[in-house]
Amino acid sequence: MSEETFDIIVVGAGVIGTATAYYLQKNNPDKRILLLDRQSAPGQANTAMSAAAVRNMFASSTNQLLTDTSIKHMEHIQNEEGFELMFEKVGYLWLLSEEQLNSDSVQLWMKRMKASGVHYRVYNKQELNELMPGLNTDFSGDEDAELMNLREVSYGLFGADCAVLDPTRLVDYYFEEFKKISHVKPRFNVNVTRLLLEADPKLDLPGEPFVWQYKRVNGVVTDKGTLRAETTVLATGAWANELLDPIGMDSRLKAKKRQIFVIHAEGNQRLLDLLETKGFNEMNCVPFVILPSAGAGGAVYFRPQLQEKGFWIGCGDKLGRAYHYVQTDEFNTGETTYYENSLYPVLSKYFPAFEGARPVSSWGGGYSYSPDAIPHVYLENGVLVVNGASGSGIMKSDAMARIADALYRGEPEAELFGGKKIPSDALSLKHRQVEPENVVI
Amino acid sequence: MSEETFDIIVVGAGVIGTATAYYLQKNNPDKRILLLDRQSAPGQANTAMSAAAVRNMFASSTNQLLTDTSIKHMEHIQNEEGFELMFEKVGYLWLLSEEQLNSDSVQLWMKRMKASGVHYRVYNKQELNELMPGLNTDFSGDEDAELMNLREVSYGLFGADCAVLDPTRLVDYYFEEFKKISHVKPRFNVNVTRLLLEADPKLDLPGEPFVWQYKRVNGVVTDKGTLRAETTVLATGAWANELLDPIGMDSRLKAKKRQIFVIHAEGNQRLLDLLETKGFNEMNCVPFVILPSAGAGGAVYFRPQLQEKGFWIGCGDKLGRAYHYVQTDEFNTGETTYYENSLYPVLSKYFPAFEGARPVSSWGGGYSYSPDAIPHVYLENGVLVVNGASGSGIMKSDAMARIADALYRGEPEAELFGGKKIPSDALSLKHRQVEPENVVI
Repeated sequence: MSEETFDIIVVGAGVIGTATAYYLQKNNPDKRILLLDRQSAPGQANTAMSAAAVRNMFASSTNQLLTDTSIKHMEHIQNEEGFELMFEKVGYLWLLSEEQLNSDSVQLWMKRMKASGVHYRVYNKQELNELMPGLNTDFSGDEDAELMNLREVSYGLFGADCAVLDPTRLVDYYFEEFKKISHVKPRFNVNVTRLLLEADPKLDLPGEPFVWQYKRVNGVVTDKGTLRAETTVLATGAWANELLDPIGMDSRLKAKKRQIFVIHAEGNQRLLDLLETKGFNEMNCVPFVILPSAGAGGAVYFRPQLQEKGFWIGCGDKLGRAYHYVQTDEFNTGETTYYENSLYPVLSKYFPAFEGARPVSSWGGGYSYSPDAIPHVYLENGVLVVNGASGSGIMKSDAMARIADALYRGEPEAELFGGKKIPSDALSLKHRQVEPENVVI
Repeated sequence: MSEETFDIIVVGAGVIGTATAYYLQKNNPDKRILLLDRQSAPGQANTAMSAAAVRNMFASSTNQLLTDTSIKHMEHIQNEEGFELMFEKVGYLWLLSEEQLNSDSVQLWMKRMKASGVHYRVYNKQELNELMPGLNTDFSGDEDAELMNLREVSYGLFGADCAVLDPTRLVDYYFEEFKKISHVKPRFNVNVTRLLLEADPKLDLPGEPFVWQYKRVNGVVTDKGTLRAETTVLATGAWANELLDPIGMDSRLKAKKRQIFVIHAEGNQRLLDLLETKGFNEMNCVPFVILPSAGAGGAVYFRPQLQEKGFWIGCGDKLGRAYHYVQTDEFNTGETTYYENSLYPVLSKYFPAFEGARPVSSWGGGYSYSPDAIPHVYLENGVLVVNGASGSGIMKSDAMARIADALYRGEPEAELFGGKKIPSDALSLKHRQVEPENVVI
């Protein structure tokens, strides 16, 4: 098998890996950086499986900073650089019960957004009914709704700076920019089988590394040969433990499946009316809508998809959804019974326009969760981990990539888009300085 | 398959599960508590694979409290109740270099032990050389030692209240006491295949539980049928993720293999002399000795085993030792090359008496590590998790079991042996109030 050497290898050409490769190359112009992925093109795995929506509405000031700067950078790419991302500020609308709005966690969330200058407004029930005639806010006497633990909507919490976009275009942007300045052609269809942990220094004894030796990761072993580098970037999303566990590094991440179901509105006037809800945004379309979480099960949500005149439906299911990640066709497909039994009954109660609607397609991807729902960016043992975005990786990708680059360069602070700064080790495991997040959809 | 119902099921009859079953039964005398294990008797799995030594010398005041009260309870069992545990206060001796003793972490450790009343003393090199003539404290001109990153010993940090014991006897104690008051005969050779997560309330629809339903664990599914209980205690040590991952509960634990190698001193005068080192304890034997960690690889240690006139050798290897746990014969066996390449060279440099010594037997077990090296005790979704002791479960077992029982009873505080108290949720994930540990062997 062949052996090649680079300065940096970036494993994973999703949005985070591609953005990281770009900033590393931009700020370290002499370094030979290899970007590689097991797919045949960038952004084809879990980046492409996301709900492709971005929000700055977080309760954690850390997440607010990461998302607000990353989203403003997307606007900059589209509006100033003229690179089309299909970025559309449709807004996010959280539908909340009286009890939810007044809960400690939502009150804290709103207080922190106000303190950080994140714009939002609260609609009351009457305003919601006028804006969204298709929303059912009256569950009185509805025994099914009671059986299903559904909370009656009393308020809407709306953030106008939240948006949808095409994440593969965002990946394309970073990928094209990276290729312009890179010295090494990115490689695809390469399977990384393990990290190359070696003794430092090597004594060339059989069985190295031993306990009494210092060790570091000197690259990766792949199905196409060994690739060496001084620094190995892991931007592998849900596929982190498979590489870190075998060398004894605790990623502290857990991955689980998330699904999207596509529903078309064409030929269904009630769904078309819902899609064309006015008053929330300049597109005159329904915003990204998050329904009150039913039971303790996680919230059902939907977003408009204007190009295909339809909706994407999803749900962040919690207890009952296994922590489990594999790369198989079955995993990457939506589960019909999940839509039918868990999502559809909730969706059609709040928005009867969905009655009878069946998905035309679906997919599933792996989300990687950290315990505090804040990403991990750290450099240990020659491995630069950029991971754990907890279901909001696209909206944090630009900031995470800049922090990873600053860490690599040994800079104490990373400068994010717009000039705001964050300590480079703020997202590390050892010197973590973050505000834990509690608004995870 | 049969179906039976209990009030509490305790999965895992290791030291922690058996102690928890005992305190639960003692303080909830009417409850029907089933203790079960996949082995054929209590304490046969990872409890029996440990180094079987206990110390109150931790840097975290949380760990100090858990271990000090548990160890005093062991003394009480042996001395007051007359139940032989082979508990012997041989003491723990950390061998440290000048640099290590003066490091921030060791200084903080000593300061915190002083503040908590944990007794220790520091020996200087001259005192060590007099007490332990077999200890090599001079590596000058030794190229091998330099190549192996070995630190020259300048100090010994000694804790006289640390001990060794026979952990299966400790399990027997709790097991016998539990059986005296239990209404249900413990069961062995039972394999738990999964936790029984169900809708609450159940609607008896096919495919339950759905996202919009509340859910809880109502027992376990085993190879001998379904066993139902209002509360399921998981005292499964290294085998926690296999049960919690499938229902979407993040244990935050990682398990890895730890090994013990047995060396006999009989017929080897230098090893006999080392074993019979005087001046440290009433047994007139060598204490539990922790060598300076070589490289970044974790410390090699040994303890005396007086009954078989020998030593147990182990090492807490860090980077390079996979996070991986399976229950196979191979996993439960020590790796000969690991002893030969990683432990023996270090051991024989510091204690030349071990030159030429080969293990007569060995074993391997699974240790379960938490991110802060403090145990987890929490009650969520009907599951009472008592886990993550991070390689020091025997010495924390009594305290962890009492905390688990207090949590079950809804008591705000748990009373530990000797009367000290701790908030019942101090070791939980959601309201964790602990001081992270940094003295992990």
